[in-house]
Amino acid sequence: MSDDERAIRALIVSWIAASRAGDLALLLDLMTDDVVFMTPNRAPFGKAEFAADARRMQGLAFDADAEILEIEIVGTRAFARTRIEASMTAPDGSARRMSGYALSVLRRAADGRWRIARDANLVTAEA
Amino acid sequence: MSDDERAIRALIVSWIAASRAGDLALLLDLMTDDVVFMTPNRAPFGKAEFAADARRMQGLAFDADAEILEIEIVGTRAFARTRIEASMTAPDGSARRMSGYALSVLRRAADGRWRIARDANLVTAEA
Repeated sequence: MSDDERAIRALIVSWIAASRAGDLALLLDLMTDDVVFMTPNRAPFGKAEFAADARRMQGLAFDADAEILEIEIVGTRAFARTRIEASMTAPDGSARRMSGYALSVLRRAADGRWRIARDANLVTAEA
Repeated sequence: MSDDERAIRALIVSWIAASRAGDLALLLDLMTDDVVFMTPNRAPFGKAEFAADARRMQGLAFDADAEILEIEIVGTRAFARTRIEASMTAPDGSARRMSGYALSVLRRAADGRWRIARDANLVTAEA
């Protein structure tokens, strides 16, 4: 496994850990400043809107897991496919389970670090 | 504009034209053999399942339009973001409008042609 692939796998693990911990500062550091998130039934959004969303959901307990299905690296860019399972639990104990797939474009910056640059996230609520 | 970008733009235009015309043979020629399509609420699928789907929908009149929001080329790989508007009209005249965004990974083969290799499609029915 190349150093780049190892770094990308570590990035995805960090992303999931930061999501579970509600560590917004870390999440924001794992994405590029020009990141674009794409989710169903919503216009694409960037870093500021991601942060506003996360702050709105601060009262929810978040659990998540990601399985890496594929990583392809091309120089300073890569794409990754993952399967994600997640759940959000409200203070009253009511929980919502979600699952689905994501396609992400990753970018290695001049500082050598890989970050999420584009993310199409098809995670939806389970029936 | 580079030759590669011109070719990718032509690929997207061909894709929309083939979708409108119901030209399945052309659509299949515009994707790699190992293509992976990702759509909400469904497991990722490949070329054979795409073809089976298209055959099942042969009675529907399909209209579509794609706006290219971004193309980034990295050697023999590229990614593209598009906004898609589409409608399907049944023989009885009932129509269904859909819209949304897509993130695609494109690949240039040894024959010099660009094809769709991965496609996360967030197009959903309009309310």
